[in-house]
Amino acid sequence: MRIGYEKVCLKDGFWKDVREKNARVSLMNVYRRFAETGRFDAIRCEKREKPPHIFYDSDVAKWLEAAAYLQRDYPDEEVASIIRGTVRTIVANQLPCGYFNSYYQVYRRDRIFMERTEHELYCAGHLIEAAVALDACGVDGTLLPAMEKYADYIRERFMIRRDTGFTTCGHPEIELALVRLYAHTGKKKYLELAEFFLNERGRREEPIYDWADHAYDQSHLPVRQQREAVGHAVRALYLYCAMADVGRLTGDAELLSACRALFDDIVKHKLYVTGGVGSGWFGERFTLSYDLPNAEAYAETCAGIALILFCERLADAGNRSAYHAAVERALYNNVLAGESLDGKGFFYVNPLEADAACAAYARSVPGIPFKPLLQRVEVFDCSCCPPNLVRLFAQVGGLIYGEEDGVLCVDQYISSQTDACGMRVCMTSQLPYEGSVGVSVSGEGTIAFRVPVWSTGIACTVNGAQVVPEVRDGYFSLRVAGETAIAIDFMMRPRFVYAHPAVRADSGRKAVEYGPFVLCAESCDNGGRLYDVSIPSLDGAKTVRNAEGVWLEVPALRSAEDGALYRYQPSAKEPCTLTLIPYYAWANRGEGDMQIWFL
Amino acid sequence: MRIGYEKVCLKDGFWKDVREKNARVSLMNVYRRFAETGRFDAIRCEKREKPPHIFYDSDVAKWLEAAAYLQRDYPDEEVASIIRGTVRTIVANQLPCGYFNSYYQVYRRDRIFMERTEHELYCAGHLIEAAVALDACGVDGTLLPAMEKYADYIRERFMIRRDTGFTTCGHPEIELALVRLYAHTGKKKYLELAEFFLNERGRREEPIYDWADHAYDQSHLPVRQQREAVGHAVRALYLYCAMADVGRLTGDAELLSACRALFDDIVKHKLYVTGGVGSGWFGERFTLSYDLPNAEAYAETCAGIALILFCERLADAGNRSAYHAAVERALYNNVLAGESLDGKGFFYVNPLEADAACAAYARSVPGIPFKPLLQRVEVFDCSCCPPNLVRLFAQVGGLIYGEEDGVLCVDQYISSQTDACGMRVCMTSQLPYEGSVGVSVSGEGTIAFRVPVWSTGIACTVNGAQVVPEVRDGYFSLRVAGETAIAIDFMMRPRFVYAHPAVRADSGRKAVEYGPFVLCAESCDNGGRLYDVSIPSLDGAKTVRNAEGVWLEVPALRSAEDGALYRYQPSAKEPCTLTLIPYYAWANRGEGDMQIWFL
Repeated sequence: MRIGYEKVCLKDGFWKDVREKNARVSLMNVYRRFAETGRFDAIRCEKREKPPHIFYDSDVAKWLEAAAYLQRDYPDEEVASIIRGTVRTIVANQLPCGYFNSYYQVYRRDRIFMERTEHELYCAGHLIEAAVALDACGVDGTLLPAMEKYADYIRERFMIRRDTGFTTCGHPEIELALVRLYAHTGKKKYLELAEFFLNERGRREEPIYDWADHAYDQSHLPVRQQREAVGHAVRALYLYCAMADVGRLTGDAELLSACRALFDDIVKHKLYVTGGVGSGWFGERFTLSYDLPNAEAYAETCAGIALILFCERLADAGNRSAYHAAVERALYNNVLAGESLDGKGFFYVNPLEADAACAAYARSVPGIPFKPLLQRVEVFDCSCCPPNLVRLFAQVGGLIYGEEDGVLCVDQYISSQTDACGMRVCMTSQLPYEGSVGVSVSGEGTIAFRVPVWSTGIACTVNGAQVVPEVRDGYFSLRVAGETAIAIDFMMRPRFVYAHPAVRADSGRKAVEYGPFVLCAESCDNGGRLYDVSIPSLDGAKTVRNAEGVWLEVPALRSAEDGALYRYQPSAKEPCTLTLIPYYAWANRGEGDMQIWFL
Repeated sequence: MRIGYEKVCLKDGFWKDVREKNARVSLMNVYRRFAETGRFDAIRCEKREKPPHIFYDSDVAKWLEAAAYLQRDYPDEEVASIIRGTVRTIVANQLPCGYFNSYYQVYRRDRIFMERTEHELYCAGHLIEAAVALDACGVDGTLLPAMEKYADYIRERFMIRRDTGFTTCGHPEIELALVRLYAHTGKKKYLELAEFFLNERGRREEPIYDWADHAYDQSHLPVRQQREAVGHAVRALYLYCAMADVGRLTGDAELLSACRALFDDIVKHKLYVTGGVGSGWFGERFTLSYDLPNAEAYAETCAGIALILFCERLADAGNRSAYHAAVERALYNNVLAGESLDGKGFFYVNPLEADAACAAYARSVPGIPFKPLLQRVEVFDCSCCPPNLVRLFAQVGGLIYGEEDGVLCVDQYISSQTDACGMRVCMTSQLPYEGSVGVSVSGEGTIAFRVPVWSTGIACTVNGAQVVPEVRDGYFSLRVAGETAIAIDFMMRPRFVYAHPAVRADSGRKAVEYGPFVLCAESCDNGGRLYDVSIPSLDGAKTVRNAEGVWLEVPALRSAEDGALYRYQPSAKEPCTLTLIPYYAWANRGEGDMQIWFL
């Protein structure tokens, strides 16, 4: 089982800083934008001229959940009073039956639970997650009973009376929320309701958008028969989260093997090198195996987050180092890129290549449906990603450790402290910038360390004595007793990474990884035409360090001359120095070109 | 001046075959499809439940024009009677004022000349071109006076009374048609009307589609100030045709320098290696310099045809070999690819790369706006390209020769005979398959031969005696007298062609040209993943000949192994033999993958 964020205390370092920025800047910044855009007014359930977005409630709920996680380490009276007021408003406006939805109960009361595609249970799910988080963190205990009442009403209507206009929600989320409600309250009925929703999915034709297919919301097949990741990526991964949870809790081998097949399909065929998923703009969806366009990537931030949530649940249901390797790839690249360095701006879409001229052209010419956004913004109409990032960063401590048959697993190298398996573990990590990790352990037990895929070698000492780590299934284990000082050095150097030859967009190209980071080049450092740059070798690459993290200066080549559009001689190449920065830090210095895959 | 198709007789060879297929198959096949789809019924101007497309008239007109060109060499009673009947119907239904439009006069009579974007004058222009062609070919003399009357009415309304809802048509065409009408009748008023339309364009805000900008139909600037090719490619090039004509006929240097700047912008920045133009799906338009995507290319067949029409007119206004090089590139590749080998199917869009799996996916998933078409069809709803191809191939003889200050220029090497500049010239060309050309001349004069850009050397004998050609401005000249036998060998071998390094889509890649042909690989010969194929060298390339023309077998490399999506070692490469065929012949053996640019 994973060791939850509440049992882990972050210490100085990269992620402490991210989380602190998250607490001190992002949380209230997102709140203010949401307040300005009427999200916190909507829950008063007063009729207004302009109805709220159908899933404003989920934005508020995710903000509450994030705020709950941050109160322990970053207590803040303003935040606390917003939480109290918000919870009071929700509870006060809840219908006597337990139902709460700021859109339906005010504007379409006659259509409650009649419209499958309108995110009603999706909003309910996020409210339930918020209630669980607030109670678990000891921040508020009043939303939980209210949301239990709502869950009971959902159970009554969907499972008992079955008088609703649909059986499974068009946007999965309620399923995983009900499992969390069960795990927190111990009330089996919520697990049964989650299982009911899973079992019903894909069993019959259910309503869907007229422009969509049933794969779009994963109702094309009964869940146990699903083997390929299809459709809207966030919907898919939220559904898979619940499948993994229910599979584990009910010992349902069919559900778990479906989950493992879905994970394998994603990491073998549908994952960007940044850990982004859902390459398709149309339907924000998984497309074909190896269809991973760079400039046109969708790779929504929420999808990267959902992949992490799925991997963590897979690990709970039977650990594999591959799950944490995927978490690491998504966390340090696609997900981290979702937020600006100042913690105020957010990306919804995370391209792997940017052409500012084309973006400007697209924005200037009418009729072009997709206007690529090359700078982060503070809020979107559909603003699911910002609060989702805030709540993920708030609980990043939960990604570090796991417990397998009494063995303590270290899966991410993030400076932190925890007590588990009868040991107190205190880790000081130089990651992501360097590979050296110090772990001091008090107590007796076994610790398994995950070997990052990017590591080119391991040096390890225990109480000063060299040990030769024996790596099995991506981990090496040490048995300790008393006071033990472990020093590990995962050798970290910039490396070329190549895509499978079937990836059309990357063929003939390579990317550069440095530790957990995928690097990119920006035109503000290197000028334009970055797609024309070739990197013959990484020998002579120089590491520089600065605000944006690790920089790399690499000897490279680019075409010298201009001239005819077509010619019978290749362009002459000129040596140049290419400056690379971590992908997550791109687009923080104005709009420009960006490139990950080089010749 | 160009020497018109009517003065040139094609002889055996590649283009004779194309034109013969055009006469024997395509002409009547297009007619039948157009008849089935109501295009020839529409001109009866009877009210029907389903109104005709607003520019059905132009389809009928282009068919008439093509039929006119073919009657001399391929007289056919069925075609002749269709021409007679069609002309009779048009004349019979013409309004007393001279107006004819099968949509407006039947369905929107109150809106005649009120709606700028609805192609009214575009249809008129094609009817005028048809009338001129029918009269010039001696096929029918009755449509001409009728269309003169229509032109007079247009002049009355737009130029004299000025009581119309717009001044310049949203789709240029009338301008070039009026110049043809002037050239054929000698009536200056038509040239003046053409000049009027050119002068008025871009002078003031005129109505445009709500989704479009003024650049879309080239009304963003007065025509003499235009230097960059922008907007809808066919509209642009039809406009530029009229600018070149009027510039030449009125000695308007400003118009001609605008035309030359526009040509240079196209060939330097916006031309596909196939000669296709208008890379943008949205608005079928010119986009940014070097924005030449391959799989997503629009490159409409009509735009390639329009480029040829523009180049021919530029040559009339002051010859440059570059114009004919562009004609050759477009003619043998983008344009020829517009028609299937059996002469029955047509492409509207001409991609330079095809992925059958992605196309099938796009067709199967709702919500994706563009469903790439990888097989030619017999008719489209908007079916401008098929009759445009038929009328171009019908007059291909007009692309071969020109006359500059008494010098006879040979610009395309197509087996043919003509009398010009006091000489009878009879050319037997092995092009496009081989570079040897035999020219027998009777009479005294100077002949200038254009040196194709792909030629790697020239061997030439005059009456058996070696001569060393002196190439100046892309031509070499020979002075002849009496009976002269000229033998030229343009050395032809497969060559790599490279794109300007700013062309993102082609960076790190090369294409293969063989004479005037751009070659491509298809999956039916080579299997899939063609984008992964690299061609280290063309040494050892073997030429094979067959139905699809020249084939080439080239030693190449492709990735051997499969495996992880991302890896730290590049894939091993395996030798293979790559079969290349001329691009124009692609997609004649079922739907599959196609590639032009290789690693």
